[in-house]
Amino acid sequence: MRVGNLKVKMQLLCGDEIAFGPGKADLLEAIDREGSISGAGRALGMSYRRAWLLVDAMRRCWSEPLVDTLAGGGKERGARVTEHGRAVLRAYRALEGEVAELAIGSVLIEGVRDTPLPLT
Amino acid sequence: MRVGNLKVKMQLLCGDEIAFGPGKADLLEAIDREGSISGAGRALGMSYRRAWLLVDAMRRCWSEPLVDTLAGGGKERGARVTEHGRAVLRAYRALEGEVAELAIGSVLIEGVRDTPLPLT
Repeated sequence: MRVGNLKVKMQLLCGDEIAFGPGKADLLEAIDREGSISGAGRALGMSYRRAWLLVDAMRRCWSEPLVDTLAGGGKERGARVTEHGRAVLRAYRALEGEVAELAIGSVLIEGVRDTPLPLT
Repeated sequence: MRVGNLKVKMQLLCGDEIAFGPGKADLLEAIDREGSISGAGRALGMSYRRAWLLVDAMRRCWSEPLVDTLAGGGKERGARVTEHGRAVLRAYRALEGEVAELAIGSVLIEGVRDTPLPLT
């Protein structure tokens, strides 16, 4: 997430895996819109394999599913974000918003040039 | 910065450069303790070149210096964190602390396993 010149990245860890972060938040939103993992991947310019790996990491990292998939005949039939998935997404976006507000109020934003001086 | 299973990375950008972030915050603290860029790099297990590049990026990104260096005879004589550098560092650490408090109060932290299920 970017606010002015401040970039904030929040990742929720599960051992060495990332249970949730910016990429998975975007993917959940895209699955919600597109109704499938493949459609969501396409909408985000992400390979099906990459999108599937992110969904699988969420499945392995959370005690309750964030995404329900409907498999059939070796082909994906569609996917939907569960209520729990929606709640996690809301909490993540809310925390991002709160962090953004803090950042805007911080003196840290001031005193930084728009572009760096050239290398010497 | 890590709070429980949440990892938060805050970077202050200046064009394509990073004006301030976790590495530069640690480096300023180390320069303050060690009194030189080389000593700070050693204390952080960082090459002199890497430490110098971080200090140079700060010099090019901020309108006011965060570090004063005392050069002499081709050799570094020492470095110190300026008042402005201290103020930026304080603001950065304060913002980290506030973000940590928000995260602790968020429902996001719950429901994540300690370790992921194995790959299938």
